[in-house]
Amino acid sequence: MTLKASKLAMVPFVSVDNMMRLVHHVGIEPFMADLAAAIEADFARWDLFDKTPRLGSHSDVGVIELMPTSDGIQYGFKYVNGHPKNMKEGLQTVTAFGVLADVDSGYPILFSEMTVLTALRTAAMSAVATRHLARKDARTMAMIGNGAQSEFQCLAQKAVNGIDQIRLYDIDPAATDKCAANLAGLGFELVKCTTPEDAIEGADVITTATADKDMQTILTDNMVGAGVHINAIGGDCPGKTELHRDIVARSAVFTEYTPQTRIEGEIQQMAPDHPVTELWQVINGAAQGRKTAADITLFDGVGFAIEDFSALRYVHEKIQDTPFYIDLDLIADPDDPRDLFGMLKRAG
Amino acid sequence: MTLKASKLAMVPFVSVDNMMRLVHHVGIEPFMADLAAAIEADFARWDLFDKTPRLGSHSDVGVIELMPTSDGIQYGFKYVNGHPKNMKEGLQTVTAFGVLADVDSGYPILFSEMTVLTALRTAAMSAVATRHLARKDARTMAMIGNGAQSEFQCLAQKAVNGIDQIRLYDIDPAATDKCAANLAGLGFELVKCTTPEDAIEGADVITTATADKDMQTILTDNMVGAGVHINAIGGDCPGKTELHRDIVARSAVFTEYTPQTRIEGEIQQMAPDHPVTELWQVINGAAQGRKTAADITLFDGVGFAIEDFSALRYVHEKIQDTPFYIDLDLIADPDDPRDLFGMLKRAG
Repeated sequence: MTLKASKLAMVPFVSVDNMMRLVHHVGIEPFMADLAAAIEADFARWDLFDKTPRLGSHSDVGVIELMPTSDGIQYGFKYVNGHPKNMKEGLQTVTAFGVLADVDSGYPILFSEMTVLTALRTAAMSAVATRHLARKDARTMAMIGNGAQSEFQCLAQKAVNGIDQIRLYDIDPAATDKCAANLAGLGFELVKCTTPEDAIEGADVITTATADKDMQTILTDNMVGAGVHINAIGGDCPGKTELHRDIVARSAVFTEYTPQTRIEGEIQQMAPDHPVTELWQVINGAAQGRKTAADITLFDGVGFAIEDFSALRYVHEKIQDTPFYIDLDLIADPDDPRDLFGMLKRAG
Repeated sequence: MTLKASKLAMVPFVSVDNMMRLVHHVGIEPFMADLAAAIEADFARWDLFDKTPRLGSHSDVGVIELMPTSDGIQYGFKYVNGHPKNMKEGLQTVTAFGVLADVDSGYPILFSEMTVLTALRTAAMSAVATRHLARKDARTMAMIGNGAQSEFQCLAQKAVNGIDQIRLYDIDPAATDKCAANLAGLGFELVKCTTPEDAIEGADVITTATADKDMQTILTDNMVGAGVHINAIGGDCPGKTELHRDIVARSAVFTEYTPQTRIEGEIQQMAPDHPVTELWQVINGAAQGRKTAADITLFDGVGFAIEDFSALRYVHEKIQDTPFYIDLDLIADPDDPRDLFGMLKRAG
């Protein structure tokens, strides 16, 4: 027999397939613009959030992390793994899913895939940082690293900041070809470059999203000119950076949640008290972003739980009255809360 | 269109309904005996596990917790809330779900309801403690607190330890009636008692599972005679205890993971260095349990992540080749791991 579960006992589930349908239903660019607005709104009320560094379980080959946060009304967490060796085995380096819950009852209200959603929110986050830190006349971006994140970065920049001239570079030309083919016909002026120097020629914004688990110097100091905004996205765990420290030293550095960024970001190369500004302070007006057109601004992005929370809340809102989810019978719901055993017994 | 996802991208999901079917398929008592054996086996290899206190997010009305652990081969975590005020609103005080994952790839391999499963594993844990700490001739248990956990406690004791004479007591006689009705016909000698003193008369084992969020003294010192084993299950968070401290003081105290029990268990009433023995040491022979027939032994149970891990592993094993799960399309699985965007684009 199938027991009838009450409405509260059912938790909406958004599969990978349904997430992709939802994104196309909204439109990829509008979806990322909405995500950017949701992140911006949550960063503007930063003080309301419970903030803890992620809780990681490390092995020789990777890490599994839980990233929780709460604004006092809702609670969210993301499960995410990082396994660089997976790609060789035909698996994703990063997979993720997440849960949104109601703080008042403790009941979960959304269970969702987050591999696709994380790619979207990561790009939306870079676009938010760029909007607040780059020169207002920025039109051209160098996209260094043309892997899984690259197309999302380009589309979010176009949707949020009107950046539509893209100069692509990857150490593997096949990755550049893939990225260019995916972006063809989507309204960009695309230039495929064969060196990083070529890619950043004339770029107002430089976004690095490379995947090596190593101290890299994708950009060296003499390559970066005045007035540029850099999104350094790929350096996101201990021992993994992308920029030469001299670039970091002469940039104005902006972070998400600084205690986490000091461990995982580009600034792990710097002294523990290297001056930084948290981006939420720029967004809510408490701190200044770019001071002159000649500044180099650096968004040292590592990804923070509040961004996932914003994304889950947005998805929860967007799926209402759509077919893009199914209900899961996840919560036991006896007629009398003290009679859990009776419910089990009667199911026999 | 529906995209075909590869086998690894699909994660088995066990709903509440399917969990209840699985339990009846195995049999309630055999299921709890198996859980007890699984917990015992994992406690015997305690040193292999990553152990951290649970990660809680507290509000005025409750708590939402994540409880992760890993044995280096598999990783598991449980989401669990605790909201005492929920019962008045017709909701469960505690709901839970959990995930098991493969450490080597980071991919989740099971998503399961855990409200029913937690009730089963909590009872199995008490039975394991009782097996190692009570007198071997124990036949009679006083069950103090006849709420959602009580029937499970009784059945696990019968399945694992042959304890089939039960003396029930609850401050609310309706709860005792409910418990007695649920256990009728299941092979017990049941006595309904109207005072705690009456309930513990002649009991070899006393199990307390009361729900008040307060410092209670369900048992006072003069009530507990020599030779008894106590499972104190209901005192499981800061500010919530069930026993008078004098009983704790003259008992030999056994814990799951001591750093957590000092915060959440009966021993929160005692000095921070109050002597305790961890139960895994008794199970693997490194420490002695009961020393004489006259000892009072106290299992100060609060529930630990390894018990959930054992339960998830058992369920994962048991559902193979059964109809008691469905596959969820939870993991994005592009043909080329670098081409997540291409997968999204083609879904349009």
